[in-house]
Amino acid sequence: MSPKITTELLKQLRQVMKSPKYVQEPVQAYIVPSGDAHQSEYIAPCDCRRAFISGFDGSAGTAIVTEQHAAMWTDGRYFLQAAHQMDNNWTLMKMGLKDTPTQEDWLVSILPEGSKVGVDPFIIPADQWKRMSKALRSAGHDLVPVKENLIDTIWTDCPQRPCKPLITLDLSYTGVSWRDKIVALRSKMAERKVLWFVVTALDEVAWLFNLRGSDVEYNPVFFAYAVIGMNTIRLFIDGDRMMDPAVREHLQLDSTLEPEFKIQVMPYGSILSELQAVGAGLSPKEKVWLSDKASYALTEAIPKAYRYLTPYTPICIAKAVKNSSETEGMRRAHIKDAVALCELFNWLEKEVVPKGTVTEIIAADKAEEFRSQQKDFVELSFATISSTGPNGAIIHYKPVPETNRTLSVNEIYLLDSGAQYKDGTTDVTRTMHFGTPSAYEKECFTYVLKGHIAVSAAIFPNGTKGHLLDSFARSALWDCGLDYLHGTGHGVGSFLNVHEGPCGISYKTFADEPLEAGMIVSDEPGYYEDGSFGIRIENVVLVIPAETKYNFKNRGSLTFEPLTLVPIQTKMIDVNLLTQKECNWVNDYHQKCREVIGAELERQGRHEALQWLIRETEPLIRVQ
Amino acid sequence: MSPKITTELLKQLRQVMKSPKYVQEPVQAYIVPSGDAHQSEYIAPCDCRRAFISGFDGSAGTAIVTEQHAAMWTDGRYFLQAAHQMDNNWTLMKMGLKDTPTQEDWLVSILPEGSKVGVDPFIIPADQWKRMSKALRSAGHDLVPVKENLIDTIWTDCPQRPCKPLITLDLSYTGVSWRDKIVALRSKMAERKVLWFVVTALDEVAWLFNLRGSDVEYNPVFFAYAVIGMNTIRLFIDGDRMMDPAVREHLQLDSTLEPEFKIQVMPYGSILSELQAVGAGLSPKEKVWLSDKASYALTEAIPKAYRYLTPYTPICIAKAVKNSSETEGMRRAHIKDAVALCELFNWLEKEVVPKGTVTEIIAADKAEEFRSQQKDFVELSFATISSTGPNGAIIHYKPVPETNRTLSVNEIYLLDSGAQYKDGTTDVTRTMHFGTPSAYEKECFTYVLKGHIAVSAAIFPNGTKGHLLDSFARSALWDCGLDYLHGTGHGVGSFLNVHEGPCGISYKTFADEPLEAGMIVSDEPGYYEDGSFGIRIENVVLVIPAETKYNFKNRGSLTFEPLTLVPIQTKMIDVNLLTQKECNWVNDYHQKCREVIGAELERQGRHEALQWLIRETEPLIRVQ
Repeated sequence: MSPKITTELLKQLRQVMKSPKYVQEPVQAYIVPSGDAHQSEYIAPCDCRRAFISGFDGSAGTAIVTEQHAAMWTDGRYFLQAAHQMDNNWTLMKMGLKDTPTQEDWLVSILPEGSKVGVDPFIIPADQWKRMSKALRSAGHDLVPVKENLIDTIWTDCPQRPCKPLITLDLSYTGVSWRDKIVALRSKMAERKVLWFVVTALDEVAWLFNLRGSDVEYNPVFFAYAVIGMNTIRLFIDGDRMMDPAVREHLQLDSTLEPEFKIQVMPYGSILSELQAVGAGLSPKEKVWLSDKASYALTEAIPKAYRYLTPYTPICIAKAVKNSSETEGMRRAHIKDAVALCELFNWLEKEVVPKGTVTEIIAADKAEEFRSQQKDFVELSFATISSTGPNGAIIHYKPVPETNRTLSVNEIYLLDSGAQYKDGTTDVTRTMHFGTPSAYEKECFTYVLKGHIAVSAAIFPNGTKGHLLDSFARSALWDCGLDYLHGTGHGVGSFLNVHEGPCGISYKTFADEPLEAGMIVSDEPGYYEDGSFGIRIENVVLVIPAETKYNFKNRGSLTFEPLTLVPIQTKMIDVNLLTQKECNWVNDYHQKCREVIGAELERQGRHEALQWLIRETEPLIRVQ
Repeated sequence: MSPKITTELLKQLRQVMKSPKYVQEPVQAYIVPSGDAHQSEYIAPCDCRRAFISGFDGSAGTAIVTEQHAAMWTDGRYFLQAAHQMDNNWTLMKMGLKDTPTQEDWLVSILPEGSKVGVDPFIIPADQWKRMSKALRSAGHDLVPVKENLIDTIWTDCPQRPCKPLITLDLSYTGVSWRDKIVALRSKMAERKVLWFVVTALDEVAWLFNLRGSDVEYNPVFFAYAVIGMNTIRLFIDGDRMMDPAVREHLQLDSTLEPEFKIQVMPYGSILSELQAVGAGLSPKEKVWLSDKASYALTEAIPKAYRYLTPYTPICIAKAVKNSSETEGMRRAHIKDAVALCELFNWLEKEVVPKGTVTEIIAADKAEEFRSQQKDFVELSFATISSTGPNGAIIHYKPVPETNRTLSVNEIYLLDSGAQYKDGTTDVTRTMHFGTPSAYEKECFTYVLKGHIAVSAAIFPNGTKGHLLDSFARSALWDCGLDYLHGTGHGVGSFLNVHEGPCGISYKTFADEPLEAGMIVSDEPGYYEDGSFGIRIENVVLVIPAETKYNFKNRGSLTFEPLTLVPIQTKMIDVNLLTQKECNWVNDYHQKCREVIGAELERQGRHEALQWLIRETEPLIRVQ
């Protein structure tokens, strides 16, 4: 991996930072955040501006360029990668280390008095603008919005913004029509006494209208905004996508509808002016609801007194609680996904052990191949993490030719992968050994498994937030002085983003919403030994009501049901470290895998994979 | 309990709310918060203004009086008590219930346009002012500081502010001299580049100067402020307390000292003008460090650009990590405290079982009597919770003649009590049955015990925050559908406040500081069956380094050592619900009680209590 040479680009950027053509007054610093105008986690190539200017293409990082300096803030996952990808023009700011200044502090320390710091107001979330602006102002500088994105002005071969066809989802997938979703949203709006709701997150637009797209890799979303009033629906979207008869019919664009369900289609780029018009027309006490993570540009379009900002929107919360059509879809998707993985693991055992010709990339491709044979397969849900030996310890590893290792009978193999099916989204991690694992590897694996079970089998009262369960996943590791430095779980969308809010299981947050029956999260503790191996065991689990002896005085209780049904390699388990209860959990889980996935393998005529499944789900026997 | 008649008082208050003698412009509403000028949890009688105006004397509540209304906000612990203590002039606002408006929303809903809302700027914390002021301003009203406390103007028989003699603590108690504490504080100030630090919390002043007082019941503190500069120390304190030769010598007031250690003693009431003078003399980039919970009045004395506000002060954090002199003192205090409780429980068994003449109040008094016989006893550390049967389910119960029940062989007895000794502070809860507990009572008790052990025996990596351990205490209860609605533990001072920050074990917070070796917290899960019984098992525990097999890659690990050494009633335990590990924990704990407390009982010649201790610490035997 050789660094990108950025000398010429930085020179050009510094010129436009002073050019009256683009800035009212010269800016002494320009901030290039990671995201897009929708604060998406995954972004389209045309939005990879930070990667373009610096060469660093990790998923998180903020670049700041001044007349003299160019600096990049990123976190521990990316220290090595960023150092490799950036040339000497750049200073790497290692976030989380004690001596690393914040962006604000660094700017204050190097800027001449009374400086202007520019940023694209569409890319920076309002809450971040507020913090940054306050810090700069108190040091005598100004944060200023620069209308035209300065990177775009020098990015001559910038790819086009994608504008791919849409997929319509009918009631059998979504369970609720878009009309009923609008009705429910308006009732939430009425409750909070707001007149308008602005939908800025791409997955929220997709969910609300029961549409999917493919503008962003791995995430079935499309570039759009929506503004919902009590009597109006405006959808801001480009291209001829609205010409598609299926879409027109789905949205009833040509039907005679009650006016409050008539969708006005407007150009994507007109959102700002339309929102400013809404803002200008408000009377006192009329409020507009926005996410506090919406862009500064859109937030600013509504005068401050009229804004109603919340960390989670009513759509984000409604979307997280899956209805029975969605959970049934997720079940089907996970059955198909398990079939593909049984095929894969059976194939790996046959290839790796005698031949030793399978690399991480080949294994990842094979996994995709098996998945793509399944009904309603759309695409992968994230870049497959296929890692063996020391690569497994790199938590967000993605095999590339330079790092590609060959699977062998001597190393642990970790596969974290998932797919988008029209009926659901999957995300599963299994850790396997194709030879004989060491006692230490088995010990670590078994602690991780105990943590996985502790969460999966946990019973907790209604109203409990997921972050309160995080320590259950660590307790067995902690007892022996081991830990892992990531959260235990994230929300999972239903044929939507593989990471979604507002729930999860992580010590890092406090602001998650309480778990509710119907929510779907991942359960994925791990253990990583730098330079040696990585272990992670991940199931996607559904929150379901639990049966308890005393039922929390009718407050009710919850637990999890695994949707993922892929065997956990028993060869890696030190049975003597399990309690009888844990041992029973594994056996019950494997029994269910055998029944449910076995039937589907049979149905699909995949007999060899079925034999593998039966072998891998033999009950554990614990010596008392 | 009959309500306080407040008609006349409210009339008077409404008059002064309009009187030019006290307010520049009439205020349409006046807020009476709970606290004192130091944001103390426990307050002196002269600061009980909210109780005076309303009759409601619970520990938490805010009164707001307008021309037409008088309303009281309090939480679930006090709904019943507040309803009993207040007359018809008052509306009870039940916090935590869905339909209860916030103070801001309520004010906005009832105030005429452009109203002024008054509050004593010394009583309201700056962060609360900010929130309230913002909400009122956005609705067109103003929050205004009213210099003279309006309650004080009508409280004709208001008690005097206490001004009791001070206790000096020498190095054998504190381990660190006040001079060295000042040096350490100044080095923290230099690190953060602040020039001044304002000490506003009473326990922080007491800790910093190694002084104790008795101005507030249960808390060995005294009314004072301090302002620490890089070369100056100012102590704001009233009365002739500084005439005491012991205090003068302790503070070296008459010695020739380096100027930076010379303490300037100033009147308590001059803090505001002195701080305003400091604020007026600052140059750009000179900062003043304050807690973000300091009063609005003091915060406002420093111009905004010069303030450095943090949720926890460096004193709060330093105070929480006890040095070896302090932990040794805490150990001694807990041994004495255990002696007193062994005497008490032995006495109760002799009195309750055959005679049935002991009431909750008599038991509480007897506990105090036994404690007061111990060396260096100063006072109780909080109002004793002595509760039997249904009273035990009232979490903050304090027996009064109207509620006083007689202990019997048919009901569970819960005693939560503690004391201030010159060498340490104690806080212990034991739950006992003097007859034969029911199977259900034993079951609940055993789940609580399992939770207690899960926290006490937990091993966790350095840097872990206490709130991450809270669920460990609940897991066994949750499995059966039971829970308790309070946190699991709080920080404990060393001959200081029984509740102190910045650490604790509670699902309610996220902002606690990580646990460190030397910190001391309580471990007190419980279970409460309304109308029947209450169960709580509480030890004070010390955070200590743990030994683990892999030691978190040298990050190090922590666990707890119980300082409280009082038998846990084995009669209440259903041994078959314990794991072997839990059973061993109980037996090891009891063995230590027997050794350590047994030796002290022997030394003090308390033979009957020693016999009781030996009986109560017989090992449990678990049938496999």
